[in-house]
Amino acid sequence: MPEQTVRQPVRISPIGHVETGYGRPEDAPPQATENYREQGRVVVYDEYRDGLAGLENCPHIWLLVWLHAQDDDQAAELRCVPRGLTATGEKRGVFSTRSPNRPSRLGMSLVRVVGIDGNVIHFHGVDLVDGTPVLDIKPWVRSTDVPPHPGG
Amino acid sequence: MPEQTVRQPVRISPIGHVETGYGRPEDAPPQATENYREQGRVVVYDEYRDGLAGLENCPHIWLLVWLHAQDDDQAAELRCVPRGLTATGEKRGVFSTRSPNRPSRLGMSLVRVVGIDGNVIHFHGVDLVDGTPVLDIKPWVRSTDVPPHPGG
Repeated sequence: MPEQTVRQPVRISPIGHVETGYGRPEDAPPQATENYREQGRVVVYDEYRDGLAGLENCPHIWLLVWLHAQDDDQAAELRCVPRGLTATGEKRGVFSTRSPNRPSRLGMSLVRVVGIDGNVIHFHGVDLVDGTPVLDIKPWVRSTDVPPHPGG
Repeated sequence: MPEQTVRQPVRISPIGHVETGYGRPEDAPPQATENYREQGRVVVYDEYRDGLAGLENCPHIWLLVWLHAQDDDQAAELRCVPRGLTATGEKRGVFSTRSPNRPSRLGMSLVRVVGIDGNVIHFHGVDLVDGTPVLDIKPWVRSTDVPPHPGG
């Protein structure tokens, strides 16, 4: 495949957005799985509502989101100080970290489904800012989302 | 946040592309974690190469990709027959399945890093078609990617 074809930016339409109590990235908890005591909502737009059928049988789901509120300059950086290295200030390549500041602005938030009410998904596990666009929702599946031999 | 803001399509520039032996989606294996015997490559574009520093310490990584080769009509469908239900033909909402045919065309491929050679990542775990644009790379992290209580 010619490189000029695959290098074109892709366009993705949000299917919904997240509603939480956080207005700024610096106030939001760093990780969904560490904050299952707090509840948020996904509002799925009407034209995508049919895609939710069966989601009530999925205990945990991935929210694939576009981290709209991150700072533009920081998102463009290819080296960053990961959370675990703030004491030393050591930088890593962004693709070897889970930093929310990254060129794609793509985030993966693993949340627990509490209930579905029409086009609204209630979930536990808040690490996103209010209004974050949701690009996709996928069920968490152990055989797909955990390596067969995680240690190696 | 006003809905008209968050509903706008987002634009994401690929950071690289995948090279595999599969030209068509219907020939590719359904799941990376089921095909760790087979090797593929990610070619990261020069301007993103600095972001790879430290990736040699990540045994498993997520490739967040744009499934460019899926059929347009199928990708737009909100109900599909998941792999496990082909015998009955029962349809589910696409967001409760891992079907590659989905509105966002976003795919998550969990692969094992074999080695890094400049801007090329060699990996085990092929389920992608040759030329698939890679939008982001993230390390797999157990505490982030496995629910605290997966059963509930």
